[in-house]
Amino acid sequence: MNQEQLFEQIKKKRSFLCIGLDSDIKRIPQHLQGNEDPLFSFNKGIIDATYELAVAYKPNLAYYESLSSKGWQSLEKTVSYLKTNHPEIFIIADAKRGDIGNTSNLYARAFFENMDFDAVTVAPYMGEDSVKPFLSFENKWVILLALTSNKGAFDFQFLKDEVTGNLLFESVLKTSQNWGTPENMMYVVGATKAENLKEIRKIVPGHFLLVPGVGAQGGSLQEVAKFGMNKKCGLLVNSSRGIIYASTGDDFAEKAYEAAKAVQGEMKQLLKNAGLLS
Amino acid sequence: MNQEQLFEQIKKKRSFLCIGLDSDIKRIPQHLQGNEDPLFSFNKGIIDATYELAVAYKPNLAYYESLSSKGWQSLEKTVSYLKTNHPEIFIIADAKRGDIGNTSNLYARAFFENMDFDAVTVAPYMGEDSVKPFLSFENKWVILLALTSNKGAFDFQFLKDEVTGNLLFESVLKTSQNWGTPENMMYVVGATKAENLKEIRKIVPGHFLLVPGVGAQGGSLQEVAKFGMNKKCGLLVNSSRGIIYASTGDDFAEKAYEAAKAVQGEMKQLLKNAGLLS
Repeated sequence: MNQEQLFEQIKKKRSFLCIGLDSDIKRIPQHLQGNEDPLFSFNKGIIDATYELAVAYKPNLAYYESLSSKGWQSLEKTVSYLKTNHPEIFIIADAKRGDIGNTSNLYARAFFENMDFDAVTVAPYMGEDSVKPFLSFENKWVILLALTSNKGAFDFQFLKDEVTGNLLFESVLKTSQNWGTPENMMYVVGATKAENLKEIRKIVPGHFLLVPGVGAQGGSLQEVAKFGMNKKCGLLVNSSRGIIYASTGDDFAEKAYEAAKAVQGEMKQLLKNAGLLS
Repeated sequence: MNQEQLFEQIKKKRSFLCIGLDSDIKRIPQHLQGNEDPLFSFNKGIIDATYELAVAYKPNLAYYESLSSKGWQSLEKTVSYLKTNHPEIFIIADAKRGDIGNTSNLYARAFFENMDFDAVTVAPYMGEDSVKPFLSFENKWVILLALTSNKGAFDFQFLKDEVTGNLLFESVLKTSQNWGTPENMMYVVGATKAENLKEIRKIVPGHFLLVPGVGAQGGSLQEVAKFGMNKKCGLLVNSSRGIIYASTGDDFAEKAYEAAKAVQGEMKQLLKNAGLLS
């Protein structure tokens, strides 16, 4: 999927919602636990209930890996289900990978070829040759960690470079623009750091940002839109727990729909306010 | 495994060799390709031939993930084979993970509980709460990326903090000492940056270092030992391609043995020179 197609979907669905499939075998409803593949059943239930409200889904790899090869199978089935039934959906592997070149190339094959994800989150610490292999796949995306939503973001991401005066996350944003384009790179910017979005938009005006941290982590959607939205929306705002665990009973799918609908309603208004919807 | 036990193994085997199981389905010998699980057959062949010469094995997760759930099964079988037949071996998941706390906790469960790895490589970019969950498992280890062996290391790892004057990898070494101890943390330091080892040893005198980059990537074992060895050796030096692909024919295991034996011979001499062997 390219940037224009993503923007078209955002306008069509009046939403820039990404639903995080942090599907925890210990938290999914009891009545699914007896199924052959409980994690896939859960994801299918969530997707069937919410696909008209979301432009992207983001399976968090840790939840699948914690079930070993069986979890990996649930993940494959989920991606395949989305691609078959909802090919307009943007699918993000939240994997935070990054390794030397030949290794990153294998990760890229795993996510882009074997499983047909549209994007992978990548950690920047190892620099250019750890990121570039992901950028050689047509219409596939790297989503590079810049400023994360967690407390530990303050440990290193705000260190100020003596030479340029850039904070580390600013160096990541600036340096990585030589590696890719707004057509194959996005950045992770936590909603809990919305006050930084204004400066970040000066550095990367045209890139999409993947914004976690709204909801359970305490970030504000209004602020994210205020400081982060650009002419093509430029935002994918993720919500995981607030939607997929809105209920852990038999009605998990309906409640997920309601929670997603509430967020989408707010997003529609924000898109209207920005003049992006006719 | 604790630090003392690891040092005992090093003295017993007269080796601080870690063999990287970067087992690529496209590079393993032809005659194994028809097996039910070619990747496991290959790993078993390498392990059977070399286990007396190595104190650690390090499967690189990308190679297994690139085969999806099937590859994950090969990985599980490899770890299980090692634990059953060679419980004295230190097993490292070269995964370079790192995410917000609850997600890192799931990765830790995947590698330490489901698969019984002894250690996981972790990326530092997201800070303390992304690393700490891995440190709460007894006798398990985090191996934190500090200074990596690749060209991209120069993009961010050498940025100099305006306030402390520390380079980023030095900040990682210093800050992370508040998170763990020499009994549950090691650091990745590339052999291609051996000249930095002297300074690094001043910051982390007691920690083990996992050193990739000897062999195919051009680092020197002599220099690594000269600047990096401490009283308990303090080094695990990794070699992957130079050993496991010493031959890609029917004799792959014998040639792997010979290549490992050559490295181990050199290591024995270096341990003797340092007065660590009686």
